[in-house]
Amino acid sequence: MAQRGRLYGIGVGPGDPELLTLKALRLIKAAPVVAYFAAKGKKGNAFGIIEAHLSDVQQRLPLIYPVTTEAVEPPLSYESLIADFYDASAISIAELLEAGRDVAVICEGDPLFYGSYMYLHDRLAARFDAEVVPGVCSMLGSTAVLGVPLVYRNQSLSVLSGVLPEDELRRRLADADAAVVMKLGRNFDKVRRVLDELGLAERALYVERATMANQRIVPLTEVDPMASPYFSLLVVPGEKWQA
Amino acid sequence: MAQRGRLYGIGVGPGDPELLTLKALRLIKAAPVVAYFAAKGKKGNAFGIIEAHLSDVQQRLPLIYPVTTEAVEPPLSYESLIADFYDASAISIAELLEAGRDVAVICEGDPLFYGSYMYLHDRLAARFDAEVVPGVCSMLGSTAVLGVPLVYRNQSLSVLSGVLPEDELRRRLADADAAVVMKLGRNFDKVRRVLDELGLAERALYVERATMANQRIVPLTEVDPMASPYFSLLVVPGEKWQA
Repeated sequence: MAQRGRLYGIGVGPGDPELLTLKALRLIKAAPVVAYFAAKGKKGNAFGIIEAHLSDVQQRLPLIYPVTTEAVEPPLSYESLIADFYDASAISIAELLEAGRDVAVICEGDPLFYGSYMYLHDRLAARFDAEVVPGVCSMLGSTAVLGVPLVYRNQSLSVLSGVLPEDELRRRLADADAAVVMKLGRNFDKVRRVLDELGLAERALYVERATMANQRIVPLTEVDPMASPYFSLLVVPGEKWQA
Repeated sequence: MAQRGRLYGIGVGPGDPELLTLKALRLIKAAPVVAYFAAKGKKGNAFGIIEAHLSDVQQRLPLIYPVTTEAVEPPLSYESLIADFYDASAISIAELLEAGRDVAVICEGDPLFYGSYMYLHDRLAARFDAEVVPGVCSMLGSTAVLGVPLVYRNQSLSVLSGVLPEDELRRRLADADAAVVMKLGRNFDKVRRVLDELGLAERALYVERATMANQRIVPLTEVDPMASPYFSLLVVPGEKWQA
């Protein structure tokens, strides 16, 4: 019986190709199959980060989301479409692993921090050897380019999704020493309103596509809420500790 | 007038030397001065991670903490000792920068995520060019070696210090979808008690020195509370999202 392949979930960092780790680079170059998530008609950010390191003999396995941010018409639902997609993706990868091929699934940022790799890991890690290589997450890519300390000493950090209902966002932000709000996009206006209400707007910093070539740092008041991309992020840094 | 040097705050990752980024490696190799924090009589974890990459001509600037976890006798206080130490460290670095030398301050994990570099950044970034290179933080090094997804979809993550008072820990953990508790050490027993009370102990995972050569993953019930090191961490992963 042929030896089974090994599954790798590899974080490739927030966007700057130089923020790849040495371990990620070594494993990606050695992988017979490199799998990556991408939206329809797009190359995918993770693939763009590592593309230059691949050779012709390595197999590319694009995993194309059936739906991203567009509305889904009943009787279909986002949840069922995406679950079917992860099922099918896991089956494709399992076939390769069964055939003895190692598969490297690359992910922007870190694989286990809101990464799509998690859904493959949940489906495959019990049956196959799986190794996760952590990456620099977009949250820390953002604080680095903003040049702002995120949390001091014993401060608590809350990482929140902009998708949360307004009440929950308000409650959690009010209770946080420091906070990061991810997944802004169409939620930007709601999040800015909550920050205004809580008196946090002056402390908050906004960045789009941190560390990527087209990164933009924009004052909160000047952000166009209709044009905020999914890869934008708000940071409310902890109050400076006067050590 | 000579051109002033540039300050770099460089994250070197959680411990495994292969989790250094390409950018960190390039800048560390090019730096005329490499500064690092260490406890008295120790080499320092960050320095150990990158030591093999340094050449003899590069200046080492150790910044030795006057106090770490030991008790401080009045009229001295931890706060005043450590503030004086950061002041003096910033002055040493400022002299080098004024003399036109670039200084790379290396930090375990990420420089702006509970990193000591933050206190130098706060003292120097207004006067000198400063660039921060983000790193893989210990939190994500830990979830990687534990092989557990940290946060799904729109879950909220709370990052907490084990130093927090028991009531605050309980309140914040009760409200979290997912949580990471850092800075355990002597606080381990208190944190385990709170997790027990909240019914979270079965979900919680414990790891010491994740990704380092002497990493240990131990079931929560088997941790010796007197022997938990500072570089240990508890993860309460988010409930699996059934996508």
